[in-house]
Amino acid sequence: MSDAGTGAVAAAELVRRAEKLDAGDPLAGKRSSFVLDGTVYLDGNSLGALPVGVPARVADVIAREWGELRIRSWDESGWWTAPERIGDRIAPLVGAAPGQIVVGDSTSVNVFKAMVGAARMAGPGRDEILVDATTFPTDGYIARSAARLTGRTVRAVRPEDVPDALSGRTAAVLLNHVDYRTGRLYDLPGLTAAVRAAGAVSVWDLCHSAGALPVGLDEHGVDLAVGCTYKYLNGGPGSPAYLYVSRARQDAFDSPLPGWTSHTDPFGMRGTYEPAPGAVRGRVGTPDILSMLALEAALDVWDGVSLADVRAKSLALGDFFLECVAAYVPDGRVECVTPRAHGERGSQVALRCGGAEAVMRELISRGVVGDFRHPDVLRFGLTPLYVGFGDVERAARVLAVVLEGVGGEVGVG
Amino acid sequence: MSDAGTGAVAAAELVRRAEKLDAGDPLAGKRSSFVLDGTVYLDGNSLGALPVGVPARVADVIAREWGELRIRSWDESGWWTAPERIGDRIAPLVGAAPGQIVVGDSTSVNVFKAMVGAARMAGPGRDEILVDATTFPTDGYIARSAARLTGRTVRAVRPEDVPDALSGRTAAVLLNHVDYRTGRLYDLPGLTAAVRAAGAVSVWDLCHSAGALPVGLDEHGVDLAVGCTYKYLNGGPGSPAYLYVSRARQDAFDSPLPGWTSHTDPFGMRGTYEPAPGAVRGRVGTPDILSMLALEAALDVWDGVSLADVRAKSLALGDFFLECVAAYVPDGRVECVTPRAHGERGSQVALRCGGAEAVMRELISRGVVGDFRHPDVLRFGLTPLYVGFGDVERAARVLAVVLEGVGGEVGVG
Repeated sequence: MSDAGTGAVAAAELVRRAEKLDAGDPLAGKRSSFVLDGTVYLDGNSLGALPVGVPARVADVIAREWGELRIRSWDESGWWTAPERIGDRIAPLVGAAPGQIVVGDSTSVNVFKAMVGAARMAGPGRDEILVDATTFPTDGYIARSAARLTGRTVRAVRPEDVPDALSGRTAAVLLNHVDYRTGRLYDLPGLTAAVRAAGAVSVWDLCHSAGALPVGLDEHGVDLAVGCTYKYLNGGPGSPAYLYVSRARQDAFDSPLPGWTSHTDPFGMRGTYEPAPGAVRGRVGTPDILSMLALEAALDVWDGVSLADVRAKSLALGDFFLECVAAYVPDGRVECVTPRAHGERGSQVALRCGGAEAVMRELISRGVVGDFRHPDVLRFGLTPLYVGFGDVERAARVLAVVLEGVGGEVGVG
Repeated sequence: MSDAGTGAVAAAELVRRAEKLDAGDPLAGKRSSFVLDGTVYLDGNSLGALPVGVPARVADVIAREWGELRIRSWDESGWWTAPERIGDRIAPLVGAAPGQIVVGDSTSVNVFKAMVGAARMAGPGRDEILVDATTFPTDGYIARSAARLTGRTVRAVRPEDVPDALSGRTAAVLLNHVDYRTGRLYDLPGLTAAVRAAGAVSVWDLCHSAGALPVGLDEHGVDLAVGCTYKYLNGGPGSPAYLYVSRARQDAFDSPLPGWTSHTDPFGMRGTYEPAPGAVRGRVGTPDILSMLALEAALDVWDGVSLADVRAKSLALGDFFLECVAAYVPDGRVECVTPRAHGERGSQVALRCGGAEAVMRELISRGVVGDFRHPDVLRFGLTPLYVGFGDVERAARVLAVVLEGVGGEVGVG
């Protein structure tokens, strides 16, 4: 883009393209289900925007259900059954039949339940746990803790190397559906089949895929899965995570966190733990109602949404964003580390960039919100329910201006 | 109370006494800090009433901090440091200096962190964990899980038998400060000293004491403690629990749930876990902000409150309630299982009663809300910040009417 005039023509053309794409977007109407402003918000893969229905629902939960009904709400307002009820609301978004998902606790705690549970499901002599070497750190820490506590060892392998690493020693494999840094999508069907063929137990972390693309847990025979709800599911900051235990694995699921709320007779207050059947077995303590019911309200935005539309728009947004970046940003200033192939891409675009931390600060100050990931990655999350093509065009244009401003620092740092 | 006329005179006298006691109550002004109605609410030991400041605070967290600032709130609104900041708000209520308490997760999950942590602190050859035989069930289930995962055995003993049960084999002891069913207060200073003298690690569950009476964690040399925040701390349904790790034990605290938020460099996203120093080490996953900040607002009601006043009123409420029950309820219809001695009483009165479940249903329908605990216990929680002497007089009077109504069923069932 050495010539300013040519650049202006290209920009005008891309703006027109964006308008046309937005006009033809079947999900465009969903944007009004969220509280948005003039900001280009490309950080929904970290914290989803606020759905408009949440404030009134939470106000009612506090003022009426807690303030007036108080303790009666455990029954009368359905608080007690919220973990499995909301689990069943998430189920269709990840391709699960009802009765297999329970909501509660943080993702980390659910990874722990899943990994100890998986290790205990594995047959004798299976003393090794495989963990995605590129994982979000907590998953690795927790997998190591689960291994230490159950007498297993941990080996970190790249997801693409898992098939070769599997053996008769493999107890369980913890994988990320989408890499939190690069946005790379891994082959859940193929890797799950390989894990199963090796006689091991598969555990998938869906934090960066649920709500952004079809997952197909039941269809692909996943054993266990966990995910957060505050990214593409828009549940709010630190909203409760979920645990999926497939129907086939439920009876063998032996949780390291056996709480009274997963007891077959919770109000019997019995001294001996007898786990309830089904998804309820994944519960532990008293459910965190305010956050949980905020999440429930947030899930209303999915009514009538086709995940195929979501996926198609997500990929189109990524393609168009990369096209705009290529048009606006001088060669060599950024390097895309997100795969271009649709089959290998989640719902974010990650750009390596010299001085990335300062660049992201400047982008945010100019109303384009993504985030920085150590050491040199700019992350731009594409949330199809409320991000438009005009947003990503503007993001690329502002990025080019910012990079111009930071000047000499060319190349990837 | 065989004679109706004598009964009416006695009732009038007790009503006058209640009015006088309420008039002289130094905490009476705190009642207006809560949303209350005509109900006599004696279930604050299960779910505390709504503090008036919570709705507006949560509305602002949702609309402005989440809705407008979105991801920026992790820094700008102080979300990231909420677990330790709110821990420091709870600290004076349980006699802890700052920097030792962190808020987050459920009580059950914190019991798990504490019990595995305690077992790992214990010296070699210490292969037994002692657990309060009368504990709330989850504590026992979780202690057994911790023992199973760390290669220890569990022995259930009554708290009063702990000194005799301690030996060179004892790794850790999990005790309840107040029994959830009977309301009996255990000797925290004495039992903690005995555990320490035996070279074991003490873990106290404060669910039924924090906010109702002075605890004195630092003063009495407690090693670890956990508690919920939705009872006497009024944090809301299922609000986050807390974990206390005494300063002296922090460096040795080796959590079974090593999450990225307890890493010494959380945003370094390093593959190897290096625990942060201090209370932060008790954190795990992303903090659940809506519930956590509701709790923070709820803690405002403690401004200017003397725990000595709270304790004195709690005991006076219990004494007066029992006096009213004795005056109104025919002999033999209920049996008080809460110790009368002040030094052995928490902040509830538990009455065994034939047909207790039906009796409690009828009490609730008449505006007196306590709860039923299997198999035959009526629990009446005394929350000094908002329960008055007139409330407990009325509760006893309505109880007598209800017991009259259920008729022949005399004696303890």
